[in-house]
Amino acid sequence: MTTPHVQLRRIEFADTDMAGIVHFANFFRFMEAAEHDLFRSLGFTLHRGVGGGGESMSGWARVDARCEYHAPLRYEDLVAVEVRVREKGRSSVSYDLEFRLEERAGEPQPDRPLVASGRLTTVHVIRAPGEERMKAAPIPPEVDAALEARSAPPEVDPPSARG
Amino acid sequence: MTTPHVQLRRIEFADTDMAGIVHFANFFRFMEAAEHDLFRSLGFTLHRGVGGGGESMSGWARVDARCEYHAPLRYEDLVAVEVRVREKGRSSVSYDLEFRLEERAGEPQPDRPLVASGRLTTVHVIRAPGEERMKAAPIPPEVDAALEARSAPPEVDPPSARG
Amino acid sequence: MTTPHVQLRRIEFADTDMAGIVHFANFFRFMEAAEHDLFRSLGFTLHRGVGGGGESMSGWARVDARCEYHAPLRYEDLVAVEVRVREKGRSSVSYDLEFRLEERAGEPQPDRPLVASGRLTTVHVIRAPGEERMKAAPIPPEVDAALEARSAPPEVDPPSARG
Amino acid sequence: MTTPHVQLRRIEFADTDMAGIVHFANFFRFMEAAEHDLFRSLGFTLHRGVGGGGESMSGWARVDARCEYHAPLRYEDLVAVEVRVREKGRSSVSYDLEFRLEERAGEPQPDRPLVASGRLTTVHVIRAPGEERMKAAPIPPEVDAALEARSAPPEVDPPSARG
Repeated sequence: MTTPHVQLRRIEFADTDMAGIVHFANFFRFMEAAEHDLFRSLGFTLHRGVGGGGESMSGWARVDARCEYHAPLRYEDLVAVEVRVREKGRSSVSYDLEFRLEERAGEPQPDRPLVASGRLTTVHVIRAPGEERMKAAPIPPEVDAALEARSAPPEVDPPSARG
Repeated sequence: MTTPHVQLRRIEFADTDMAGIVHFANFFRFMEAAEHDLFRSLGFTLHRGVGGGGESMSGWARVDARCEYHAPLRYEDLVAVEVRVREKGRSSVSYDLEFRLEERAGEPQPDRPLVASGRLTTVHVIRAPGEERMKAAPIPPEVDAALEARSAPPEVDPPSARG
Repeated sequence: MTTPHVQLRRIEFADTDMAGIVHFANFFRFMEAAEHDLFRSLGFTLHRGVGGGGESMSGWARVDARCEYHAPLRYEDLVAVEVRVREKGRSSVSYDLEFRLEERAGEPQPDRPLVASGRLTTVHVIRAPGEERMKAAPIPPEVDAALEARSAPPEVDPPSARG
Repeated sequence: MTTPHVQLRRIEFADTDMAGIVHFANFFRFMEAAEHDLFRSLGFTLHRGVGGGGESMSGWARVDARCEYHAPLRYEDLVAVEVRVREKGRSSVSYDLEFRLEERAGEPQPDRPLVASGRLTTVHVIRAPGEERMKAAPIPPEVDAALEARSAPPEVDPPSARG
């Protein structure tokens, strides 16, 4: 529905395994990189500062991660990792992710086939100064607003305005 | 129900990230290692040979992978990765995985807390000589039988036999 | 002396370790990615095809790799990985690499401090169809010529021509 | 000269790349794991505590790492990573590492061929509470003594005592 945030990524040699394709665990690294790229595009960094202060630390713990694999990715493939906010709670955000093949062996892929779909569920956590454990905390208001705006369907003219 | 196959694993420095805990994508590497360790315990190797022959190649493609994270793993933790066959089809096998903390900071953890639970769904695939694409193929009979035996509930004496 | 090939790279969360900095082994992944990016810029791919043919496979085996670390890289740093051809033999190529910090915490780093220097020595190898072992082979002439051109010092007008 | 500390390691699928062998950057992960295993064998942990105290943090920064590759490692290989103290300064320690193939495709390798040799140079660093930068610090005396004992040639009876 809403336009996803898209991060383009060139598959590297070290991403592959002896089956000649991208190792399945690396799709999770790529999902996280797209999530972080979305945050950066909104003006936030995930590293110290998102709602943090003083010496406290703030971050997003992963509580659930999953991926369905439809087709392999190969060395030098150009892949678009598309991330959408799926659901947002008081302290949690989940994302839907799609991996689309943009280019293979130097050839553009006009159909952009879906090679994998994933989901990532995260919880905003804070670690108070001097403590070791992180605990769940409400999403900082400015982050919440930015994600909300990002999730909102694109505004359309009301029917009357179109006629 | 059935006894799981267990692989013990010591968390390494390179498994961690700047949050000071094991990076969430690494749990998928650990799941695969436990799956492969189960195969090795059954006398099979996943590398060329499981049902393969000639120059053909045989393997297990991942079609779905997921993980729920309950608590972090840390550097030098000793973790037990338990793998059970969940479901077995004509060419597919899915596994349930549990990560249990056995030791932290040198201290045994008698409660063996569950730190993560995962699931891995795989399909047996074959690549014919000279071809690039893998395609699904029935599980080799000897592997099927070994997994079946591994999944079967431990035999118990009938009540009458015990008295 | 010669202008290096430069690949820009944004440090990802998964590149870091619990010391809060990029894990030292990842610098080698980054070196290789820059080497491959250089090849791509020259119109070659390292994957099947560089001098290969039929079902044979061609690649560049690593024979020596080293890195000196001058300063840490951190999450979200933008780093320039500069690669220069250091020496070229009949079948081997070695590269000098420099890691320069371009941006940290959103701030450009005009001094581009040198955070690490590396060297990579590679040998062109071929695996004949049906064989498992790779063996050293002369650098394909078109690759040799391209690397030669890339290594050549920029042409300068002779003194007399300037006056 | 001195007996090395040895860590045995089974190569995992995720350690390989599309060339069908262990990716060269992973040898550095393996070196570090062997270094840490040596420390653990001496009763130390590298994680908070080696000479640390309060909220300060102590660790070993890598200043130089290198590896020569003699032969490939493959999936399921059993490899011995041997680590020896090469040189010890006031705050630095360097190690020599050797990778020896113990078992391949289920077959013991009685010759234990040397597949790679590496070197790792580290500096003991401390981060004071509240500070971000680490700085070099003398090796804690108890660690120094333990490494010294580990490096010392095995005691031999003087000639006269032997007979």
